Amino acid sequence: MSLTIVGSMAFDALETPFGKVDRIIGGSATYAAWAASNFTNDIKQVSIVGGDFPDEEVAKLEKRGVDFEGVEVVKDGKSFFWSGRYHMDMNTRDTLVTELNVLEHFNPQIPDNYQGSDFLFLGNLTPDVQMSVIDQMKERPKLVVMDTMNFWMDIALDGLKAVLKKVDVLMVNDSEARQLSDEYSLVKAAAKIQEMGPKFVIIKKGEHGALLFHDKHVFFAPALPLEDVFDPTGAGDTFAGGFMGHIAATKDVSFENMKTAIIVGSAMASFCVEKFGPTRLQEVAKDDVQARINQFVDLVNFDIDLV
Amino acid sequence: MSLTIVGSMAFDALETPFGKVDRIIGGSATYAAWAASNFTNDIKQVSIVGGDFPDEEVAKLEKRGVDFEGVEVVKDGKSFFWSGRYHMDMNTRDTLVTELNVLEHFNPQIPDNYQGSDFLFLGNLTPDVQMSVIDQMKERPKLVVMDTMNFWMDIALDGLKAVLKKVDVLMVNDSEARQLSDEYSLVKAAAKIQEMGPKFVIIKKGEHGALLFHDKHVFFAPALPLEDVFDPTGAGDTFAGGFMGHIAATKDVSFENMKTAIIVGSAMASFCVEKFGPTRLQEVAKDDVQARINQFVDLVNFDIDLV
Repeated sequence: MSLTIVGSMAFDALETPFGKVDRIIGGSATYAAWAASNFTNDIKQVSIVGGDFPDEEVAKLEKRGVDFEGVEVVKDGKSFFWSGRYHMDMNTRDTLVTELNVLEHFNPQIPDNYQGSDFLFLGNLTPDVQMSVIDQMKERPKLVVMDTMNFWMDIALDGLKAVLKKVDVLMVNDSEARQLSDEYSLVKAAAKIQEMGPKFVIIKKGEHGALLFHDKHVFFAPALPLEDVFDPTGAGDTFAGGFMGHIAATKDVSFENMKTAIIVGSAMASFCVEKFGPTRLQEVAKDDVQARINQFVDLVNFDIDLV
Repeated sequence: MSLTIVGSMAFDALETPFGKVDRIIGGSATYAAWAASNFTNDIKQVSIVGGDFPDEEVAKLEKRGVDFEGVEVVKDGKSFFWSGRYHMDMNTRDTLVTELNVLEHFNPQIPDNYQGSDFLFLGNLTPDVQMSVIDQMKERPKLVVMDTMNFWMDIALDGLKAVLKKVDVLMVNDSEARQLSDEYSLVKAAAKIQEMGPKFVIIKKGEHGALLFHDKHVFFAPALPLEDVFDPTGAGDTFAGGFMGHIAATKDVSFENMKTAIIVGSAMASFCVEKFGPTRLQEVAKDDVQARINQFVDLVNFDIDLV
């Protein structure tokens, strides 16, 4: 059962308190595909790149079962470029440069062989692009998960609300959940967002973990306490990729299974932040992933026998 | 096996986005005793109050097994008074008034019948007072747990470090852990603090939960996501009281049992913040506590079977 991932594939320049890198591959669909490909080798990628995007990076993902038919290559164009600087707390970052390049005219065409895809992840993109992908899917996927950001709430709220009506799971961070719902309490925010469409709301809190809300139920997954968060770029997309990969591998869209999927996503994100860009994600093997997930079990497991 | 609690008993005036109250009982030892008395009825209280502290509040705690022989009453003195205002995020607060009153000359005398107490909680007080209590204990308690704050790091760091050498567990919040260790990473901070004396370090992160560090082990307990945090005053002391109460009830000072104790503390703290001051703590019954602890199980419990 295939997983379709829609998002950017790009170059980033990054600066953190631990170092800097001038040009490294990035983009939401890049991170999501690397994370998901630990769990499924039937991934349909939808993105747009310039002629500058490295063939070897494409080849590495193809080897892991990622189909590039849906990735448009604009030979004489340049890939999306973002440059940012993180501060010590890693929760705040300054954007130094944003060059949309080929992403500015991204109008994804879903290939025929992507039809019938069971699971769809819509990375952070304009709501119009997200809607266009949903509309092109002749058969509705079993689970549609979307990411978004405050920028679209500011400039394209109506379009965003229209997409929200068509998705099952919204993934946002805490400040985005607050802005979208106009509620400070995350419990109230999640309830309001569920009224907007998605029956499941995942609120990401970075180093403070993630919450999954569904009806009256709530689940919490911690972030793994790390000696250092070296570079948080892509952690949210990696989380999403791990989540989707587990759902696609298990073919189970229940609340119970989403809990495990969130732990898997958190585990993948904990790798992502250990090195610049997707470097660490490209290194980890199946055993590393299993060992990391076991750390999450140890982290939250307690004995409930009381006196 | 008795639990000795040392701390303030006081009056607070509180203002939160949800309302205000001009005069309500408070103080670290008050909150800790209310929380702990859900689990043990052998509590030895050490504090100081003025003639203005209400007899009926003392009587309510005595009924729950709290011994007041170690609470000095200065008949013509006034109890410690603190007034503060919280902002919407509840993590920042402005202190409006601090009147030390009788607390200024607090020189606790440990009664003979407190000797042999197995568990000792040192609430946030000057390091000299904390040290004096430890020195007066003829037999070292099985577990000594201390709270402190940034204020003592600023003005009495040497005294604080001397006390740290004599305690088993330090409870601080994240910014205090960073200040004490001069490390931003909480993992590194906890490791450094363990070198200062306490073999166990609990770092409280308010709405983001709490971490327990010991050697190479780490445990994370979330805070319960609530519709509203009505008043966070006393949540940390309530957490400590629940933690100590569980330890005293189970007589087990292992890392494994401390995990459960932290969940118990988190459950008690989640009640505390639901109403002003200790109001809610004074209402909850055994069944409420058990139900709340079960909510924590549901909150973090997940199935680890992967494909």
